[in-house]
Amino acid sequence: MSESPGRALRDLRERKPLIHQITNYVVMNETANATLAIGGLPVMAHAIEEVEEMVSAAGALVLNIGTLSAPWIEAMLLAGKAANAAKAPVVLDPVGVGATTFRTETAKRILDEVDVAIVRGNAAEVAALAGLEAEIRGVEAIGATSSAAELARTAAGRLAVVAAVTGPVDYVSNVEHTRAIANGDPMLAAITGSGCISTALTGCFAAVRPDAPVEAAASALAALGVAAEDAARDAPGPGTFHARLYDTLYALSPESLDERANISDA
Amino acid sequence: MSESPGRALRDLRERKPLIHQITNYVVMNETANATLAIGGLPVMAHAIEEVEEMVSAAGALVLNIGTLSAPWIEAMLLAGKAANAAKAPVVLDPVGVGATTFRTETAKRILDEVDVAIVRGNAAEVAALAGLEAEIRGVEAIGATSSAAELARTAAGRLAVVAAVTGPVDYVSNVEHTRAIANGDPMLAAITGSGCISTALTGCFAAVRPDAPVEAAASALAALGVAAEDAARDAPGPGTFHARLYDTLYALSPESLDERANISDA
Amino acid sequence: MSESPGRALRDLRERKPLIHQITNYVVMNETANATLAIGGLPVMAHAIEEVEEMVSAAGALVLNIGTLSAPWIEAMLLAGKAANAAKAPVVLDPVGVGATTFRTETAKRILDEVDVAIVRGNAAEVAALAGLEAEIRGVEAIGATSSAAELARTAAGRLAVVAAVTGPVDYVSNVEHTRAIANGDPMLAAITGSGCISTALTGCFAAVRPDAPVEAAASALAALGVAAEDAARDAPGPGTFHARLYDTLYALSPESLDERANISDA
Repeated sequence: MSESPGRALRDLRERKPLIHQITNYVVMNETANATLAIGGLPVMAHAIEEVEEMVSAAGALVLNIGTLSAPWIEAMLLAGKAANAAKAPVVLDPVGVGATTFRTETAKRILDEVDVAIVRGNAAEVAALAGLEAEIRGVEAIGATSSAAELARTAAGRLAVVAAVTGPVDYVSNVEHTRAIANGDPMLAAITGSGCISTALTGCFAAVRPDAPVEAAASALAALGVAAEDAARDAPGPGTFHARLYDTLYALSPESLDERANISDA
Repeated sequence: MSESPGRALRDLRERKPLIHQITNYVVMNETANATLAIGGLPVMAHAIEEVEEMVSAAGALVLNIGTLSAPWIEAMLLAGKAANAAKAPVVLDPVGVGATTFRTETAKRILDEVDVAIVRGNAAEVAALAGLEAEIRGVEAIGATSSAAELARTAAGRLAVVAAVTGPVDYVSNVEHTRAIANGDPMLAAITGSGCISTALTGCFAAVRPDAPVEAAASALAALGVAAEDAARDAPGPGTFHARLYDTLYALSPESLDERANISDA
Repeated sequence: MSESPGRALRDLRERKPLIHQITNYVVMNETANATLAIGGLPVMAHAIEEVEEMVSAAGALVLNIGTLSAPWIEAMLLAGKAANAAKAPVVLDPVGVGATTFRTETAKRILDEVDVAIVRGNAAEVAALAGLEAEIRGVEAIGATSSAAELARTAAGRLAVVAAVTGPVDYVSNVEHTRAIANGDPMLAAITGSGCISTALTGCFAAVRPDAPVEAAASALAALGVAAEDAARDAPGPGTFHARLYDTLYALSPESLDERANISDA
């Protein structure tokens, strides 16, 4: 755990990895712009005719189930297996898991058929995916308490992934190691797609830290959190905050990220 | 008609209803962010496998035909019927009706098969949907004249819905009562999706005023209009206006909405 | 070549042509807003049931293969043929051609079956489409050198289109005439969709200059370039730049465009 998020950011900006994203319609522009701002090269492609070829050139694959349909699931599975074959890390965002059976089953199917490196979701989504709903009441509150750390740890074990649970404090765990990231701003919750952006950025960092998924996710969440802190300063509301967030992601320096990232063991 | 738009806004912010939107690709991010800014929780889902389950948890359903295709129509019909069964109000945005036979027939089919509470469109769209094209020349001009009020009234009767016709002055009618909303700014016409945003906001207010669709639509249009007035102040152009619109929707207080909403009988 | 870009812009703002765009999910909102800001009326429609009827009312058709799938290809071909029959110019953006066989073959198929007036892409895309990959190394660098002019000329000849190759300097060629456009700002490369926006604007100008595609493309690229120069002034980063770009496109006057457009023979 001696990694520095700043060093990962420097590598990301130098290598400019292609980040293949099969994501939802709502946030495609936003995750593409966030990927560019942090230093990656986004590509969106979902046709079964091309996803395997496209992912073969990518440094990471991001799968996001926010606006699912049957052909997209097929594309996600094809792309995921091709990413596994190419040893490109796969990051899964289980948007809305627990809200419908279709989403829950699709996320589980992806986890069954694809070797997913990192799952990034909010507490409710990660709990639903890990089958912890029954044990959880008031998922909204979890993020504020130490139980979100426990959730990340348990989900990591049950799902055999690195689990990144975002909330007021974010937790990333591979069971053995759990990291807390205490950066960010409540304004993130006032714009749609901030979770999806955090997943896309996790893909960017995973592309340059494929063998250190805990640190990749922690670095990504710290980078977004620090950028959000800067974007929220004097922002009159979520629209201006949203526009500025790309400014501050773009302007974020490796030195500043190392200095301000609030990452600790949990 | 003793409702206060401010009280509806307060209820919206307290209850945070889930607003299920099956809408067009162009505006998904925008309607989601507007929904969040006013106080609702947006969810976009269009798969036939999940729309019925998703809408069962929603306070309202918004159907928008801006970028139609056959599978989406099927999803809209399934979701609409499920919303009816759950007694969640359905708001329809007939984007581009009259421009192609496909759009006109689809909108009519939705009206036939689903109990739509509110139709929100511009004068040309509402006229085409109500079969009033032959009686209308220069639809662009209608919004500025009292004939838009007549259009809203006639369409409400013919379509058996509350009709909300937006333009320089907006008119909302259930035949018996017709309300004029004289808020807004011409800059709204310079961004794509402002109509779709008004429909999404109508869904938000309908979720907390399911039994008062005229006041729900009037409150939503007043809220957007007041927010647009604030966003347009000193805005150098539509890009800045657009970003600020989410700031001003977010900052809009119930008191300010009551004070500034310019709603009258028409 | 006596055209004035300012005069074309004035015509565009007076006639407000409908620009039918079958484009990718990532940029739909952005190209629609850019189309509005410059003076056109955007419409997005991709259903095979309506594309022919929709394009029959349009001044130009923009095809963009950024997020392809089989049904969209069918729609593009139908719309393209209908645009040809209606004598509306067709502009093609071969996003990502060369990255996958599927994209390359689809772009070629569109060129085979549709009479495309203008192809707008970056150097790598245009080179791949024209079968010039083998002769090219380091496509990123091409834009900065005179070889991009040669690429535009050669591609125009091989593809029998007007080729618009964008980069640090843009080149537009119909083989006989080649124009260099030296406007713009590096910040354009920091936002997703700036290429797609340039294609949409090319469609707008082509709608009012259907018989002068070289000047239409040159005018569009100059307009975007000048607007980008204004938007970049004091912009703290790509998010603010992006929002302002719609302000500056909207505010661009014909006089200013004529004065500042840096178009020369190449």
